Order: sequence, then structure tokens, then C-alpha cells
Amino acid sequence: MSTERERTPSPTISEVAEAAGVGRATVARTLGGYGSVSPKTRDRILAAAKELGYRPNSIARSMTTGETRTLGVVLADVGNPFFAGVLRGISDAAREAGYDVIVLSTDESVEQEAAAIEVLVDKQVDGIALAPAAGRRETLPHLDVVAKRGIPLVLLDRLVDTVAADAVVINNREASREAVEALIAQGHRRIGFVWGPVTNEPAADADDLRRILDHALWSDGERLLGYLDALERAGIPFDTSLVTHVLKNEQQATRAVLGMLALSDAPTAIFATETDALTGALRAMRQRGLLCPEDISLIGFDDSSWASVMTPPMSVVAQPMHRLGVLTAECLLARVAGSDAPVATHVLEASFIARDSVAPAAR
Amino acid sequence: MSTERERTPSPTISEVAEAAGVGRATVARTLGGYGSVSPKTRDRILAAAKELGYRPNSIARSMTTGETRTLGVVLADVGNPFFAGVLRGISDAAREAGYDVIVLSTDESVEQEAAAIEVLVDKQVDGIALAPAAGRRETLPHLDVVAKRGIPLVLLDRLVDTVAADAVVINNREASREAVEALIAQGHRRIGFVWGPVTNEPAADADDLRRILDHALWSDGERLLGYLDALERAGIPFDTSLVTHVLKNEQQATRAVLGMLALSDAPTAIFATETDALTGALRAMRQRGLLCPEDISLIGFDDSSWASVMTPPMSVVAQPMHRLGVLTAECLLARVAGSDAPVATHVLEASFIARDSVAPAAR
Repeated sequence: MSTERERTPSPTISEVAEAAGVGRATVARTLGGYGSVSPKTRDRILAAAKELGYRPNSIARSMTTGETRTLGVVLADVGNPFFAGVLRGISDAAREAGYDVIVLSTDESVEQEAAAIEVLVDKQVDGIALAPAAGRRETLPHLDVVAKRGIPLVLLDRLVDTVAADAVVINNREASREAVEALIAQGHRRIGFVWGPVTNEPAADADDLRRILDHALWSDGERLLGYLDALERAGIPFDTSLVTHVLKNEQQATRAVLGMLALSDAPTAIFATETDALTGALRAMRQRGLLCPEDISLIGFDDSSWASVMTPPMSVVAQPMHRLGVLTAECLLARVAGSDAPVATHVLEASFIARDSVAPAAR
Repeated sequence: MSTERERTPSPTISEVAEAAGVGRATVARTLGGYGSVSPKTRDRILAAAKELGYRPNSIARSMTTGETRTLGVVLADVGNPFFAGVLRGISDAAREAGYDVIVLSTDESVEQEAAAIEVLVDKQVDGIALAPAAGRRETLPHLDVVAKRGIPLVLLDRLVDTVAADAVVINNREASREAVEALIAQGHRRIGFVWGPVTNEPAADADDLRRILDHALWSDGERLLGYLDALERAGIPFDTSLVTHVLKNEQQATRAVLGMLALSDAPTAIFATETDALTGALRAMRQRGLLCPEDISLIGFDDSSWASVMTPPMSVVAQPMHRLGVLTAECLLARVAGSDAPVATHVLEASFIARDSVAPAAR
């Protein structure tokens, strides 16, 4: 490798045009393979291009075709195992179709999402996959430019009512209900839920909670609604002190779970709806010297390789991350190719995997 | 969102040129802000551009400036937690500097790496960060075009002797030696190592192993050399049956560790140099009903959130993943900005974190 900073790029269309003694546009038409050029001129241009070692580049092609063969992907955090798995799926399907992927993280900030969308529109990506940072009922004015330019958009992992685009999500509500019902079936009636919505004060009751969820992320809200569904079906009263109302990070989960465990009527089981929620719950239990499942039964979300080799192996709701990514890219590429099929929401099934982290309720 | 497929793009430079009655090149010079244009012509062009609602896009800017403000990142697997963490660091530093990131996975295949490099050169990225899939002594002819075009390149996580580019890696050899010495300090002399190099037959002895490592990934090789260093310093003879020689995935690790555990002189401790190696070892122990650390002491690599909440909490070598990514992007951006500093290898320190997965050797 040379560390020489001077670039020696492929000759430009202008240089080919000068060598062939024709205009730039004629060269572009000839090398781009569109429009009409006389055979004689065409031969002269191809000879000049060959002589100069011209190699068409993607930027020149983009100028003529309007395509960049690049997809933009906007996620919460590319370092998060769930989104890393999804990105791998998107990436695999995009490569397969000859597309590349520009990826941007929002850290769940709508402002960062707006900035990311602006970047992708400016880069003229052919399509955008977005895991929105906004709540399910919010409006997203930063997507107006995407619609106006006719750039295909697919929502990923989360729905937003005001955005009529294709979407690929999982059945969070049903999968969560099933997980909580597995706890109830073992006699648990005091079941902690990590993560609840971030609020200044806890929800007063289940109806208040449902109202709050209108402003929460769709996926978070659905998981909590699944929890409420399971409680209601079993006739178990909702207790707001068993639902965390903190920012979504492991430290906050640990603190919130420590708070639950200090209640006089502490939970006997916890449903943790993200990896960080589960590790936070485990950390809190460790600090209090509580064992799983003897003292507290646990069910997590996402089946990482760790979950099944822990002591005890963790029962989890497993999301098809790679498939979610592949299907998102496929939907997006179909739109890029001009599909005018009706807008559709694709719902993939998560599966509940029962292992050894749930025991019958002792109390 | 409209699902209308027809695009309504910003007017092109050609349309502005036609409206202003000047040539394309003059418009490009004026809107690109370079070269000289008469004030009168300039005013006419700006008026036409405003009239048509012209908004310069990044492709047009790239045509004039030769910059795409995009970095290419080529990793083994973006879905792997280590590389996801590194990518997040690269992404953060790139965003900070106004650059975006195209990411491609190689699955440790040199062919896929060559294809990825070709894509990135074609896309005219401003710089490339590469975690090479090739062994430390291999030649990489697919990087010739990168050198020829003068595209800045930074090696990430792994060195290749034949590539004289900046590199950002961690001190794998010293960190691994330290981890193995922690096992030796507890009386362990039969220490398994997962992952060794993939070979048709196991290395005959330590010298043979060192020769094999010339063709292995730099990072894998360094970790194994650190293991050999520790054994040598302690006067412990090398036993090839304690080093896995299988493909790097969890299933193969599980099988290989089951093989070790079946030896009449089985290991009393295992050093697992990747997350999948550690979970594979734990799975093998679980299948054999062996407990950590009572039956087998364990040290892993990478400090995921799981490692510290397991029973027992795992002792690990923690790599500064995010910092590795940030520093890689910073090195690359310095070269993009024209730095002609001598080529440098930056070595970040991994830290050994002692927890409860190591106990004194019983046998």
C-alpha cells in the first residue's frame, strides 16, 4: 500500500469527450448505453474510452440512471444485538440483489432520525428502511420529503399510525401474552414487567396506562398490552408498581427491579422485554442474593446464544431477527423495482421457548 | 405517505443550464462554487436555479468535488456482537465528521472481501476500514486498486504483514497471556484453548503450531501465541489435543470441547477467545453435567452484559470495542483529510476482568 495522498482516478467523461472530439452528453449516452448515437461516433468514443482506461463508476452511472443502488437503514442502535441481527438480514438480501447499505443509528431520538433521513435523501438512496423512534400515534413531518421524492420506505420493527408505508414487524402483543400466561400457569400472580413506558409518574390504572402507550414506541406498547391481556384473561388486578417507568438502559432496569423486589408484596416472576431488561433484572436479583427460578421466575426477550447456556437456561420470546431484516429488504426492493401492490404490514411470528427459568410460584 | 412510484426529483444541472441559456459545466462551476464565472452569468444561473427549485444533491456534489463523504467498512459479520460494537464506534465518529458509512460483511471469506472492496471502489467511498479475512502473511491483490486510486485504507482488528496501511488493533497476545496466567496461578496445568487454527490435522508441536499460525488470522494467531507464551513461562508442556482445530462456530466449539472433556487427562480449565467459543464451551459442560468453576474454570473474551450476570459471573478479557471503532474512523478521516503522517499501528489495551469463573485446580 502506498500512503501517497494524490489520487489517480479513472479518466472522467469530460476527458473521454475531449479525446474523442465530441460533447460530454454524447459520451454519457454512449457509455451509459441509453439514447441514440451514430455508429461512427460511438466507435470513436469507445476507442477513446479504451485508450484512456475509462472505467464507468457508480457516481457517473447514478447521474445518468438516477439510481444509486444503495439502501438507507435507520435503526435505534447498530451496536444492539437485536438490530445488529436485523441489519445482517437486510444486508444479506440487499447484497443478493446488488444493493449496498448505508446504516445510521438514532439512539431513539426523533431529532437524530430526522437528521438521518435528510442525509439519506441527500445521498439519493433508492429506498429507506426505518425503525421509527417516535410513538405509534405521532406525526413524522421529516418523512414528507421522502414521500414527495417518491423514495420507497419500509417501516421496520415498529408501526406508526400516521405513516402509510409497508412495514415488517413481529406479533409482539400475542407473543408477550403467551409468555406472561406461561408464568400465570405456574401460579404467579405478582408479575413484574420491564420495560414500561417512560413517564413522570406511574400510570394510575390499566386504562391510564393504555392512554400513555399511545405515545410510546409501538413495539414497547404492544408488549405491555400483551401483559395486560394476560392479566385480564386470568382476572389478575393490574398493579402499576410492578411496571417499570424508567429510561431503557440496564442501569435503570436494575434500579427499577430493586425497587420492585423491596415491595412488601414483591413480584414472584418478571417478564423482561429486552436483553438489557433481562440482564438488569438478573443484576438486581444478584445484588439481593435471589436465585432464579427458586426465588424469582424469569422470562426474557430475544434468544441470544447466552440465554440457553446460563444457569438456569432462560425461557425467552425469540424474535426472527435475520428473517425480519431479509423481509424488510425484500419489501423495499420490490418497491424500488416499481411494485404498486397495496401497502402491507407483514407480521412475523416470535416463538416462546420454555426452558428452566420458570418455576411454580412458592408464595 | 404516498405509495406513488413516480419520482419527482429536484431539477438537474442540465435543466438549470437550459433555463439559464448556458452550458452544463458553467452551471456546475457556479452551483459547485469553484472555478470562475462572470458575475452576470452567475446571477442568471442562480436565478434559474431558484426558479426551478434546484437543490444540489450529494451525487452532483460528488461529480464536482470527487468526494462522496462516505466511508466503507468491511467486517467479518455485522451481526456479531464484537463487530456490531466496533461499527457503532466507527459510525459515531464518522457522523461527527459529517461522513456516512456503507457496511459489508465478508463471513471471513477472502472472495467476499474482494467483492466488497470492488463495490466500495466503484461507489468511490472516501476511505475504507477493513477487518481482513486473510491470514497475517497472505498477499491481498484485491487491495491493489485501492492503493492505485489512492483511497485511504485502515486495517481494523487484524494486521496483514504485506499491507502497509494504518491499523487499529488490540494487544491480543499480552491480554491472552495474562488470562492464561490467571488460570496457571490457580494451579491449572491442563488448559484447553478454543479457537485454534482450522487445519486438516492437529499441530504436531508448538513449533508446528507457530508455522500454521502464519496462515491464520492475525488476531486468532496472537491469542494462541499468548497462550503458548504463558505455558512456556510456566514450563508447562504444550499438548495439541487441548487446542481446537475446527471451524469457528458455536456448534464446532461444543463438539471440540466435548472431545477435550472426554480425554483421560481432561482439561481443568478452558480459555475461550470469542463469545461463541465461550458459549460453546458452556454448552459442552452443560451436556456433560460439569459445573463452572467447581469442575472446570473458564475465561472468555469480550465483556457482554451477560457475562457479569451469569452464575457464576464470567472472568473475561474485555476489548474496547467502541473505542476501537472510533479510533479506526479517526485514523481514516485524518488520511482522507490529507494527513501524510508515517503509517502507524495503534494498539489498544484489552483488560482482564477477574470474576468468579476461575477456581483453584482440584486435580
